[in-house]
Order: sequence, then C-alpha cells, then structure tokens
Amino acid sequence: MEIDEVGKHPYPTTASRQLMAHHERPSTSYGFLDEELQRREADAYVHIGNRFDEDLRYLTRYLGSDNPYAFIYTAETARLLTSALSRHQAEREFAGDHVVTSDEQLAISIEDRVVETLDERSVTEVLIPPSTTIIAARALEAAGMEIETTSAVATRRRQKNHEELACIRSVQKSTHAAMAVAEEILATATHEDGLLIGTDGNLTTESLRRSINATLSAHGVSPADNTVIGAGSHCSDLHFRGDVPIGIDDPVLIDLSPRGPEGYHGDFTRTFVAGSPTEWIREAYDAVADVKDIALASLEPGISASTVHDRVVDAFDARGYESGYVDIGFYHSAGHGIGLRLHEDPHLKAETSLRSGDTVTIEPGLYHPEFGGVRLEDLVTVTDTGYENLSDYPHQLKPRQDIATSPEGSYAG
Amino acid sequence: MEIDEVGKHPYPTTASRQLMAHHERPSTSYGFLDEELQRREADAYVHIGNRFDEDLRYLTRYLGSDNPYAFIYTAETARLLTSALSRHQAEREFAGDHVVTSDEQLAISIEDRVVETLDERSVTEVLIPPSTTIIAARALEAAGMEIETTSAVATRRRQKNHEELACIRSVQKSTHAAMAVAEEILATATHEDGLLIGTDGNLTTESLRRSINATLSAHGVSPADNTVIGAGSHCSDLHFRGDVPIGIDDPVLIDLSPRGPEGYHGDFTRTFVAGSPTEWIREAYDAVADVKDIALASLEPGISASTVHDRVVDAFDARGYESGYVDIGFYHSAGHGIGLRLHEDPHLKAETSLRSGDTVTIEPGLYHPEFGGVRLEDLVTVTDTGYENLSDYPHQLKPRQDIATSPEGSYAG
Repeated sequence: MEIDEVGKHPYPTTASRQLMAHHERPSTSYGFLDEELQRREADAYVHIGNRFDEDLRYLTRYLGSDNPYAFIYTAETARLLTSALSRHQAEREFAGDHVVTSDEQLAISIEDRVVETLDERSVTEVLIPPSTTIIAARALEAAGMEIETTSAVATRRRQKNHEELACIRSVQKSTHAAMAVAEEILATATHEDGLLIGTDGNLTTESLRRSINATLSAHGVSPADNTVIGAGSHCSDLHFRGDVPIGIDDPVLIDLSPRGPEGYHGDFTRTFVAGSPTEWIREAYDAVADVKDIALASLEPGISASTVHDRVVDAFDARGYESGYVDIGFYHSAGHGIGLRLHEDPHLKAETSLRSGDTVTIEPGLYHPEFGGVRLEDLVTVTDTGYENLSDYPHQLKPRQDIATSPEGSYAG
Repeated sequence: MEIDEVGKHPYPTTASRQLMAHHERPSTSYGFLDEELQRREADAYVHIGNRFDEDLRYLTRYLGSDNPYAFIYTAETARLLTSALSRHQAEREFAGDHVVTSDEQLAISIEDRVVETLDERSVTEVLIPPSTTIIAARALEAAGMEIETTSAVATRRRQKNHEELACIRSVQKSTHAAMAVAEEILATATHEDGLLIGTDGNLTTESLRRSINATLSAHGVSPADNTVIGAGSHCSDLHFRGDVPIGIDDPVLIDLSPRGPEGYHGDFTRTFVAGSPTEWIREAYDAVADVKDIALASLEPGISASTVHDRVVDAFDARGYESGYVDIGFYHSAGHGIGLRLHEDPHLKAETSLRSGDTVTIEPGLYHPEFGGVRLEDLVTVTDTGYENLSDYPHQLKPRQDIATSPEGSYAG
C-alpha cells in the first residue's frame, strides 16, 4: 500500500512523490497460522508487542513504535492495531490485510482494543506467543478468553526464504565493507611506544568502533549496538565494549552484527595483528582457520547441529586446545541461527537436524585470559546439497590495505 | 568491577590493559525497591527480560544479550543472573552486588534459575514488572510464589539525576553535529530539473539519512533506527523511512533520536527548505517557531503536562491552524518524556504535574497531506525554577553552511 493517492501537488516539485524501492521487501504468508489454529482448535492468534519483538516484526513487516501495538489473525484475515499517528507507515509496511488505527493514543489500552476486536468476532479460544506479558494475558482472560501459548511463529522464522536471504546477504556485504575499512586503518597506522597511532591520535577500540559504525551507517544498515572490538587480553572477553589503546603487537578481534532496514542481521568476525603476533596468537590463528574449514565441510542438510559443534570441539582437542572452561580455549557455541533476531534457532549446540534455509554463523575461537583471543566467523545458509557461504571475504592475520569489496557493499538487496 | 586482575601479561604490549573511562556511568540505587517491597509486603523483586527492556537496563546498567537474563532483589541485595559467556561484561557493568553466571547456556531456563535462587532464600511473595511474560509468571506461580505486578521501576526512571542528564546532554550534542552536517549537505547541493544533487548524485531522503547516521556513529552514538527524514508531502508522514528524491523547493523534515552507549536517547528536529519555500510552509514555519517559544515559556515545576499541550493547541488555534484531525494541522502530542526509552513518562497529553528532573521534548508541528509539514523539536529538562534547554542549536528555514557545533559534539560525557 502506498500513500500517493492523496491528490495533486500544486507545487513545481512532485519528485518526492516517487517512491524508490531499493530492494524487494520480504513478505509473510499466514498459511502456517491457519494450520496452527486448526491443529489447536483456536479461533484467533493474538500478538501484542512493540518494535523490539522479532516475531511481531515477522508477522507484520512493520517497524512500529516502542509503544505496544497488536497483530490479530482470525479466519484468514490479518489485522494490525496501531496508533493513528503511525497510520501512513503502517499502511506502507503492513504485510497483512487491514490496518486499524485509534485516534485516542492514550485513552484506550492496546489490550482493550484487542479484546474489543475479538469480541466483535465472537472469539473465545486464543493462541498467544510465549512473550505475551502477564498484563495482556490477564486482560484476555478477564474478558473471558481461553488462552494458550504457541511457538509457531518462532519455529516458522527458522528457515529463510530467498527474499529473507537477499536481506541477509545485503547486510552481510555491509560488514565486509566495514571490515575492509578496519583493516585499512590497522594496516596504515603508525606507532609510538608500542601503541598504534591513527589519523586522529591513539588508535583505540572505541575509535576503531566509531570508524566501523560510521561505515555501516553509510551503507544503510544499523550497527545495532553489536560492534564488539577486543584488543590484547580483552579479546578473550566475548562482549568487550570498552575503550583501550591498541598495541602494535596486540590481537584485534572485530565482531560485527549490524541490522538491515528490514530487520535482518549480518554477523562477521575477523582477527588481526598489525605488528608481530605472539606465538600463542599465531598458532591459535592457524588452528581456528583450520577448524572453521572443518566445520564448514561438515555442513549439509540432515546433519545434527550439535554434531557440527562437536566436530569443532574435537578438532580443537586434536590440536591440543581445551574446550568447555570459560575463558580458556574454545568455550562458546560453534554458531547460532540468525535472522530478525541476532541469536535464534538453530543454535549449534542443540539437538536438531539442519535443514535447507537454516542460516547460521560458523565461529570457532580460542581464548586465553592473558594472551587474548582469536575468532573467525562466517555466515552460511544451508542448501539442498550443502551450504552457501555468505561471507565472501578472505581472512589473514596481517591487516591489508586497499581491499576491494564488492560494489554491492551498499545495502541495496 | 574491572577485569584487570587476571595476572601479568608476558608480552611487550600491556597498553590495552588500561581502561579509559570517557564519562561517568550512571548508577542506580535500590532504596526505592526496599520501600516498595515493604509497602507491598513482598520478599523479592524479580525482573526477567533482555537487552530491549529499559527498566531492566536501569536496574542493572548492563547491556545484556537478546537472550533473557534476570535481576533479583532480595533483602538489600541485587543479583544479576546471566550466561557465563557474558561474565566479564556483567562484572564490568552490573550496578548491583552479585553476578551469578551459569555455565550451561541451554541446559537450564532462566525461569528455573530464578526459582532456584528464590527457593534458596525462602521467598514466597514476589513483585514483578508488568512486562513479565506469561511463561515467566506461570513458572513462578508453579513454584509456589505469589506474584503481583509493580510499576515502581518505570515510575522511578521518570526524574533524571545529573549522571543521567550528562548522558542525555552528550547524545543530544551528537544530534547537533549530525544536523549541522545535514544543513551543510542541503546548503551546498546543486540542482537539476528541480531536484537537489549532492556529491554522489541525486540527493534523496535515504542518502541524507546515511550521511546523518554515519555522523552519529562517528560521534559514538547509535542512530537506533530512529532517523526520520521527510521531503515534500512526505513531511506530513510522521514516521517516513522511505527513499525519495529531494526537490529544491521541498520542505525537508529531519527528526533524530539516537541512543548513547549508556542507553539514553536524544531527540531533535529541524525543518529546512534549500530553495524557495511555498507560502504554506513559510507561514507554518513561523507559527511553529512562535508556538515552540510559547510552550517553552510555560515550563516550570508544578504545571500540568497537559496544560503545556493545551497551550500549544490554543496557540495554533489562535493562528488559524486546526488541531486534532490526523494528517492536518497539529495532530500529535506537544512532547514526551525521554530517557532509556525514546517515549516515556511524562507524556505531555497526560494529567500529571511536571517536576524537576522531568526531561521532555517540546515539538510543535503543522502538517498538510499535500504541502508537507514543519516540525521544530527541542529537548529540555525541568529544573527547580523553570527549565534548561538541552538543544543549544538555532533554527532557520534556510539551511546554513559551516555551522560550528560545540567541540563536545562527540559523545564524551
């Protein structure tokens, strides 16, 4: 639904009325909800949440407010209940049938509006997601509804279709462009007293994060508070967000997980040393690179996710690295599913068979509280015959200058 | 808590061990929870959520994962239950007393860990926030807990203390730097066939958004998917995120609400016309500027929030502009509270007296579905005697070149 039917613009410039679609927006078909309602003998699926709820984003394709809104599915009809202030946006973005807005933003709660809508349709048996708040659940019960939870939407989101993969591919390309900028900054830095010096003084994890996040933003994706950069011993801290100077011989671990305009994430990690790596880092780097290849080679439809994880553990073990103790060796999962949520099914420690469309990170790493750490992470999608690697970017411990990333590095889809 | 006690680094570069604190992190004191527990005769406050939960961010000062974690407050002791993979980060960031991590990320649910912790302390009466999920609430009830909801945390967050204001001030300065970049781009653009041309071809709402978001990111704050840019008739769409070319005589409405590293938001809007504004836009601009001054002049502790809103409505009315009909005239609220959440109490349509520390937007606007719209938005904090305007930035319909923003434009606190 577009909003270009509001009448003729009496002024010279009508150019801004043309909507430029850079990429196809992913759609959602609701057949799985019909099946779930039938299977559970329910009349409606009701989802109340806000813009931070990925299942609701999937159902609506609408980037709503931080204030709650609702999706109601009854009898093959998908409704979005939202504020009148968001009407234009909702009509542009909503993947379903009807946008119902309320003029009185504060006068009636979203729960009351949902109950009203359900009452008008004589609904009594309602499926809700596990994320439903106690307040919303109680409001439905107080109105005489019988509620039961379903994880049908989260389950449905696991396999990515080609529209979703186009979004993920596009945001992943922006991580490559940002990584190339980071490599160039590290490769061209000078040094003084063992510390790297960039164009604006000391190169630090925070200054590097700002350069990377600016690049991601310039490519049309959101850094999403997910840019983790460790230096030296802080590389062993999986979520380091602090600001420390970068030493010339320090490992620098850069993990980028931005979010594209349709809500899909990328995820990409490389590790570099500008000067001379320590022996521990050099050996760990070679081991991690080998183990990444071993994990990738194991990917095919039908293999258990946990088998991929176990092969990573075994391969590190064969190289003399311990697993399982926090802070030392390999101690996280070999990877996780990715989509509208950064961490979603399938997790690679889980007992579930990989299927075509599963889109997961492969991210072996080795850590030491003193020596730092190394991680290499690619993003792949499982295909009918094996997998496709969405991280078309080489790895090398020494940062490179003038890396040519593909021209589609910009979010374009 | 820092993590620099892990032992001597045997390698030449120890530089990365020094933590550079750019700004004081806001703290949280839990006395209000003691009072609430006493008043409600409960033994514990339990908050289960993830990084998208602002109340949980306030309680913990921890930017956790998209996977759930929990805050438990019992007998003057604040605990954070999170994954072992986040231990370092949690110890660095948590504002409370104890970080309790679990090695088995997938083996035990956060709800079970919470119940275990409560059982060990013989807790039976539990307060929970309204955001608690039905799953978590049922798990607590199934374990024999009596649960009741409280909004004490959201209420507590309303008045900002000076540490929080330092965060908001800092992120607001980054909006000024980004607005100056936008003004410069608009002021220096050439034009062809009535369309603005920037350094990379046609200037569009999306290309301008990317320049703005890159500037915000370079200043250390997150654009947070909140950069709304309208052009021409799309200015009347309050949440326009599309991509349209910008005409030389089009109004361009730029609304920035980025989020700083401690989670606090800024909020700032200006409207520009590069060429010749239409009569409707010129008159609307003058009216909006006048009404903003009227709204600001009304701010003082004790005044009702809705009175501020009503004065805006009345002032527009006196100038012949209608209010209350969606899409025409002034049709949103005169402003809203801001903090860890972009829209929070006090909303300026609400019946509540403003108090010192309330930090709100003042954002009158006028819209027309054909002619576009104008909005000017400042961010202010109510003081003991009046208010302080945190938007130290002039307004002018014609975009300017070479605007000097304060050197503290960078997020530094």
